[in-house]
Amino acid sequence: MNRQELVSNIKKKKSFLCVGLDTDIQKIPKHLLSNENPILAFNKAIIDATKEYAVSYKLNIAFYECLGAKGWEILEETLNYIPEDIFTISDAKRGDIGNTSKMYAKAFFENMNFNSVTVAPYMGQDSVSPFWTYDNKWVILLALTSNKGGDDFQQIEDANGPLYKQVMEKSATWGSKNNLMYVVGATRPEMFKEIRAIAPDHFLLVPGVGAQGGTLEDVCQYGLNEDIGLLINSSRGIIYAGNGPDFAQKAALEAKKLQEQMETYVNKLS
Amino acid sequence: MNRQELVSNIKKKKSFLCVGLDTDIQKIPKHLLSNENPILAFNKAIIDATKEYAVSYKLNIAFYECLGAKGWEILEETLNYIPEDIFTISDAKRGDIGNTSKMYAKAFFENMNFNSVTVAPYMGQDSVSPFWTYDNKWVILLALTSNKGGDDFQQIEDANGPLYKQVMEKSATWGSKNNLMYVVGATRPEMFKEIRAIAPDHFLLVPGVGAQGGTLEDVCQYGLNEDIGLLINSSRGIIYAGNGPDFAQKAALEAKKLQEQMETYVNKLS
Repeated sequence: MNRQELVSNIKKKKSFLCVGLDTDIQKIPKHLLSNENPILAFNKAIIDATKEYAVSYKLNIAFYECLGAKGWEILEETLNYIPEDIFTISDAKRGDIGNTSKMYAKAFFENMNFNSVTVAPYMGQDSVSPFWTYDNKWVILLALTSNKGGDDFQQIEDANGPLYKQVMEKSATWGSKNNLMYVVGATRPEMFKEIRAIAPDHFLLVPGVGAQGGTLEDVCQYGLNEDIGLLINSSRGIIYAGNGPDFAQKAALEAKKLQEQMETYVNKLS
Repeated sequence: MNRQELVSNIKKKKSFLCVGLDTDIQKIPKHLLSNENPILAFNKAIIDATKEYAVSYKLNIAFYECLGAKGWEILEETLNYIPEDIFTISDAKRGDIGNTSKMYAKAFFENMNFNSVTVAPYMGQDSVSPFWTYDNKWVILLALTSNKGGDDFQQIEDANGPLYKQVMEKSATWGSKNNLMYVVGATRPEMFKEIRAIAPDHFLLVPGVGAQGGTLEDVCQYGLNEDIGLLINSSRGIIYAGNGPDFAQKAALEAKKLQEQMETYVNKLS
């Protein structure tokens, strides 16, 4: 999916919501456990219930990988169930020497057909660029993360600024606003101001709205650009909103709530 | 596997060789392609031929993941084929928020039974420590990598030193020499001197001897400690040493050559 299509979907749906499918067998409604494939059944129900409100789904690869080969099948089947016009993210945090990143790119872009993959920047340019050997595929690079450990190294600063800013500045010369997004945590919304100074045009994937803290309003105040430029993720807050037979309706309600808040901002665009 | 067992295996085999199973269907001998499962057949033959000389096998997860669910099965079957007394590394370069790293730990330490996993440090402590919730399992943390992009961010320096040193110093307070190793590239062997000043006791996983450059002698000169403290990896230089029906013998020869060089250093220990 290219940038134009993504922006057009955002305008059409009046939403920049990304729903995170961090599906954990321990947390899904008990009545699904009698199903032959409970996780897939859960994912399909969540997708059916929320696809009207979401422009993106983020599949947290760890939650599938921990089930082995079976998990990988569920991952593929879930991906294939997502409508074509919805932007898909393999939240994998990969990154290795070029030769190996090429294989990860093959995993997510050729063997499966994700639109994007999250990548960790520690190993630099040649660990990132192999993901761009496929047309219309995106790298979503870790910049500033919202977890506690995010401060351990991301703020280390030399004359060129803190690490997370250097990651953004350097990588902006490797890719473009048309194939590169950044992961920026939402717990410190005031930092979006500085981030927009470095990357005014890039899309930002914002985890951490909802269960991990940070409000939509805060993020939008500083983070929006003229194409919206944000994908705001909510995982647990939506998919585990209910735990009974009506779990999918509850999830839909939460997604709708966020979409309606987002609508105001999208309407201001045009 | 605990440290004592690892050191004892090194002394017994007079080797600190790690064989990297970066198995690529494009590169294995053509005659194996008629096999029902060519990659598994290749891995088994390589393991049979080299297990006498190796104390560790490193499975590069990307090379299996790019084959989807089938690749994950091959990964598991390969792991299960490795003798119990050989230290196994899932070279996965994972790392995410705690909740997610916990799932990756489950994938490699519970669903599969690897002894260790490589982890990227960008997201800090809470992205690393979930891997230590299993006994006798190791984190091998990226510190200084030998690829070109390694210089993009790892050398960023503030008053506390360059990033890669801060990664080592901080993480040494999270884990110990009994559950934490570091990935240190071999292209700049003189840097092992500085690294040993920070981490005199930790094991170092050294990729990049062979195809990626750097000689064993250089690394040993500065990198050895009183328990050897090194696992030296060779992937392509061993597993693709031959391309005909005798590929496994050729691999054995290359592994033996490295083991014999290592023997001199191990003999100096006692």
